[in-house]
Amino acid sequence: MNKTSKTWSLAIAATAALAAGPAAAQFKNPDAAIEYRQGALAVMDNHYDRIGAMVKGKAPFDASAALANAELVATLARLPWSAFIEGSDKGDTNARPEVWSQPDKFKADAQKLQDAAARLVEAARTGKPDALKAAFGATAETCKSCHDDFRKKH
Amino acid sequence: MNKTSKTWSLAIAATAALAAGPAAAQFKNPDAAIEYRQGALAVMDNHYDRIGAMVKGKAPFDASAALANAELVATLARLPWSAFIEGSDKGDTNARPEVWSQPDKFKADAQKLQDAAARLVEAARTGKPDALKAAFGATAETCKSCHDDFRKKH
Repeated sequence: MNKTSKTWSLAIAATAALAAGPAAAQFKNPDAAIEYRQGALAVMDNHYDRIGAMVKGKAPFDASAALANAELVATLARLPWSAFIEGSDKGDTNARPEVWSQPDKFKADAQKLQDAAARLVEAARTGKPDALKAAFGATAETCKSCHDDFRKKH
Repeated sequence: MNKTSKTWSLAIAATAALAAGPAAAQFKNPDAAIEYRQGALAVMDNHYDRIGAMVKGKAPFDASAALANAELVATLARLPWSAFIEGSDKGDTNARPEVWSQPDKFKADAQKLQDAAARLVEAARTGKPDALKAAFGATAETCKSCHDDFRKKH
């Protein structure tokens, strides 16, 4: 194991601890890890979009629903990262090799989303549509930035 | 709309309110709803299995990890049910037609899981492996019961 992959393994372990357990043996195989991270991202995306519908005026503003959705986004935002395990660069995944070759940058991007999601919850707690809209936009930037560098283009 | 499907629509609406928003327009299309519910169930299953590894002696007992996993199970257990929307009986799904033809029974089964997951969190809070094991087993029964009636056999 070279220094980079060792650093990444430690980073994965640290993130996984926050995500309820050590990374080792948390996934039956790489395909299960891919299913897990895609599942977490899909559910997160759905709840994020529900806030998006409010801030874009496509759905009525509902402060309690916004908060519930933001809390789900923040909870789910913690989860995918420990699932980018060794061997899960192959298979039914849109992850680019840079996830594994630029681990520090990937980890930093993952953290930016989690920080933005925490601020999204704070904004939702204010009950103010403008605050929610600003935090929603800031969160979207973290999604886009990470996807630009680490997700395959469709 | 016949009486049964109207009752089911109301049931979906009530569940969806708990899951952060009304059911209407929360999914782009039936395929997105299928992806969402399968994602939520896959992530839930993973965290449930992490508790399973502890209660089966395959992983060391870790009270804080058990609690974090149980809380994720309880959070995720609320989500799938609003995604069994009209039209999502077709496509890449293992849901049996009974989900839509026996809506009251399906809803009751979904509630049993949520109740069991809440007790799983309580058991994890005790920090006692025996309590966790008992609650884990009780939760497993709700999974099996619902799968027996509402999931296609593989």
